Amino acid sequence: MVDRREALVGLDAADPLAGFRDAFSLPEGVIYLDGNSLGALPVATAGRVAAVVAAEWGRGLIRSWNDAGWIGLPEAVGDKIGRLIGAAPGSVLAADSTSVNLYKLLAAALGLRPGRRVILTEAGNFPTDVYIADGLAASLGEGHEVRAVPAGGLREAMTPEVAVVMLTHVNYRTGAMHDMAALTAAAHAAGALIVWDLAHSAGAVPLDVAADRVDFAVGCGYKFLNGGPGAPAFLYVAPGLQGQVRYPLTGWLGHAAPFAFEDRFRPAAGIARATVGTPSIIAMAALEVGVDLALRAPMAAVRAKSLALSRLLIDLVAARCGDAGFTLVTPLADAERASQVSFRHAHAYPIAQALIARGVIGDFRAPDVLRFGITPLYLRYVDLWDAVDVLADVMTREIWREARFSMVRVVT
Amino acid sequence: MVDRREALVGLDAADPLAGFRDAFSLPEGVIYLDGNSLGALPVATAGRVAAVVAAEWGRGLIRSWNDAGWIGLPEAVGDKIGRLIGAAPGSVLAADSTSVNLYKLLAAALGLRPGRRVILTEAGNFPTDVYIADGLAASLGEGHEVRAVPAGGLREAMTPEVAVVMLTHVNYRTGAMHDMAALTAAAHAAGALIVWDLAHSAGAVPLDVAADRVDFAVGCGYKFLNGGPGAPAFLYVAPGLQGQVRYPLTGWLGHAAPFAFEDRFRPAAGIARATVGTPSIIAMAALEVGVDLALRAPMAAVRAKSLALSRLLIDLVAARCGDAGFTLVTPLADAERASQVSFRHAHAYPIAQALIARGVIGDFRAPDVLRFGITPLYLRYVDLWDAVDVLADVMTREIWREARFSMVRVVT
Repeated sequence: MVDRREALVGLDAADPLAGFRDAFSLPEGVIYLDGNSLGALPVATAGRVAAVVAAEWGRGLIRSWNDAGWIGLPEAVGDKIGRLIGAAPGSVLAADSTSVNLYKLLAAALGLRPGRRVILTEAGNFPTDVYIADGLAASLGEGHEVRAVPAGGLREAMTPEVAVVMLTHVNYRTGAMHDMAALTAAAHAAGALIVWDLAHSAGAVPLDVAADRVDFAVGCGYKFLNGGPGAPAFLYVAPGLQGQVRYPLTGWLGHAAPFAFEDRFRPAAGIARATVGTPSIIAMAALEVGVDLALRAPMAAVRAKSLALSRLLIDLVAARCGDAGFTLVTPLADAERASQVSFRHAHAYPIAQALIARGVIGDFRAPDVLRFGITPLYLRYVDLWDAVDVLADVMTREIWREARFSMVRVVT
Repeated sequence: MVDRREALVGLDAADPLAGFRDAFSLPEGVIYLDGNSLGALPVATAGRVAAVVAAEWGRGLIRSWNDAGWIGLPEAVGDKIGRLIGAAPGSVLAADSTSVNLYKLLAAALGLRPGRRVILTEAGNFPTDVYIADGLAASLGEGHEVRAVPAGGLREAMTPEVAVVMLTHVNYRTGAMHDMAALTAAAHAAGALIVWDLAHSAGAVPLDVAADRVDFAVGCGYKFLNGGPGAPAFLYVAPGLQGQVRYPLTGWLGHAAPFAFEDRFRPAAGIARATVGTPSIIAMAALEVGVDLALRAPMAAVRAKSLALSRLLIDLVAARCGDAGFTLVTPLADAERASQVSFRHAHAYPIAQALIARGVIGDFRAPDVLRFGITPLYLRYVDLWDAVDVLADVMTREIWREARFSMVRVVT
C-alpha cells in the first residue's frame, strides 16, 4: 500500500504516458475525475476548430464539401475510431448521437431476425439505451418487446424469441465490464444478433470488435475520445452485415448517389448506408482531434496505467476513508474493471458537491453512487493522492453537510 | 430595366440592410450565391466558438452543462428560431438533423391519426424528405405508404386515408413557395395533420406557423440561419399537440427527469420531449450566433430586398443572356417566389462549374438546374450585376465547354 505521496511522484516520473498531459488544456486548481462523462480539451482542438470556421467555412464556403474533404469526414473519422475498437476500415461511421445510432442498429438487427420480437438487455443498463429500445418496440408494435434481466441471467434469457441482445460493455454506474467475446458468442449460439454500447470503453480499454465477432456497436465521442460536449457519436456494423441491413432512418447521405436526387431511396453499399442527414462539420473536426490524440497513445500502456490508477484510488479510499461509509461497487478483478471507480454512499450527492466545490470533479449518479473517471492520458498518480486528501477532509470534517443541494445536471 | 451598374450602386447606398454585410466574413473575389445551401460565416462566430471551446469546455469542463447553460441550449436556441418562424416560446427545439427531426414528427403524426396510413407529399419534394418518409413507412409496415402527387393535385389527394401531409415550403430546385396557410387548412379540413419542411424558408421569408395553424415543422440551421456546415436542425410542434405526441426516438434528454436515470421512459411535458441524445454544444453555439444575427434584421426589409434582388437577377439574365438557352423555373409572382432564382439549361452543370471557377458561386441541381441563392443580409445589388457579367461572358465565349466535369458534391 502506498502511504507516501512521494512514491507517487516517482510513478509519475516513470510513466510512459506522462507526456500526454501536456496535450490537454487543463484548468488550474482542478483534479478532473469526470473524463468518463466529458473528456478534457485537447490543446490542438482550438486551432483546428478555428481553422474549420475561418478558413474552411468562411473562405471555402460551399466548396469545402469537396475541397476540405467535409463530405468524407463521417467515414474518415469513423475509420480512425475503428482503429481504437478493432474494426476494419469501412465499418465505423461517425454520425448523430449514440441514441439515434442505437435506434438505427436495433431496427436493422430486428429486420435481420424476422419472427423474433425480443430485444434482450441487462437490468440497470444505461437508461437511454433502454428508452430507445422501448420506443422502437412501441413504434413497431406487433409483440415487439424489451426484456431486461440481471447480468447473471443474460445467457439463460437468450431464448429463441430474442432477435437482438443489447448490452453496454461497461456499466455507467459501477464501471463493471462484460466479457464481450463470450457474450457475443452466446448471443450467436442462440441465433441472436448483438449490439454493444461502447460509450464507456472506446478509448479506455482494449477492444477488438472484429475478433470478438461483434455484429453492431455504438459509442460516444465525448468521453474517452475527448471530442467535446455532445460530440458526434459512432456506430459499427460488421462488414458481412452491411449489405443486408435496412435502416428505418433513410436519409439522403445514406443513398447510393446522394447528389443524383433520385426519387426513391437506393441504399449505399457500405457503412455510408447508416448516414442520415448532414453532420456538423465543426463538431466532427473537434472529434477528430480527440481521436487522433487517442490513437497516438499505445492502448496497452493506457490500459496498464488505467488499472494502476483505479486500483490506487480504491486502495487510498480504503486506507484513508475506510470508516466513512463508502461501499466499493467497482470490481476488483482487473478483467472486470474498466476505467472508473464508483462507491455507494448514503450521502453521495452532497459529497460529490462538496468535492466539486474544492476542485475535485467526479460525479454523482442516482440514487447513491459517487463516480470517478480514470483517464490515463491526463491524470497523474499524485492527482489521486491529492483527490483522496480532499475526500478524507470532506468526510472527516463532514463538510458535505454544508454542500448546496442544487440539482447537478451533468451528462454521463 | 436596369442597364447601368451605377444605378445599382445607388440602390446599395440606400439599402437599409447594407450594414449587415460587415457582420459576415466573406472571401475576396467571390460573389456568393449559394447561401441557400450553406450560409456565410458571421464575423462573431469565430469568437463565440473559441470561447465555448477554450473557456466553457476547457476550463468549465463538465460544470458547463449547468454553469454555461449548455443543458438549456436546444430550447433556448429553439426559442430564438421560433421568433423567426412565428412560433410561441417553448414550441421549437434545436436538435439533430432535419432528416432525423422529420422522422420523429412523421412518426408522431401517424400516431395521432390511427387507422390512417398514408403520408401524402408532393412529387419533386426534396428527396431526403421522401426517403425518410419511405423508410418510416417501410419500418412500420401494415399498409403504411407514401404517396407523391404533383403540387396541383395535393388538395384532391387529401383523402380520408391520409394521416399526414408532408410538404417543403420552398421547392429546392425552383424556389417556388407554397401557400402555407391554405394548404394547412386544406389538410385539416381533410382530417389530416401537416408537417412543413422550412429548410429554404426559415430566415428567408416571413413565416407565421402559429397563425397558419401549422401542426409540425422542421428546418435547417445551415442555410439562411448561417449556423455553419451541418449545423443542428430544428423542429416545431404546435403547443396543443406537445402533450399528445409519442416519438419513436425516446432518448434520455426527452425524459421528464433525465438525471433521475429511471428504468422506464416518462416523456417530458413540453417541446423537450422531442430531444433524443446529447447535442453538440460547439455546433449549437455556432448556430446561435447565426440566429442572433438573423433576428437583428427586420423580416419585412429582408423580404423586400430579397424580392428586389431576385427580380433583378431574373431581369439581368433575360436582358444579357436572353439567347443563351436559359429557362426560368422560378415563379415571377412575388407571393410564389422565395429567395432563390433557378434556370434550366441543357449544360447547367458545366456552366455552374465555369462560374465557380470565376468566383461566382451558385450551384447545380440534377438534372439540369442552375440555382442562385439570394441572401439579402450579405448580397449587394451590384453583386448581381457583376455575377451576370461573368455569366454573360461564360455563355458568349462558351467558356463552360472547358469546365472540368468533376462531380460536385455540394450539400443543399
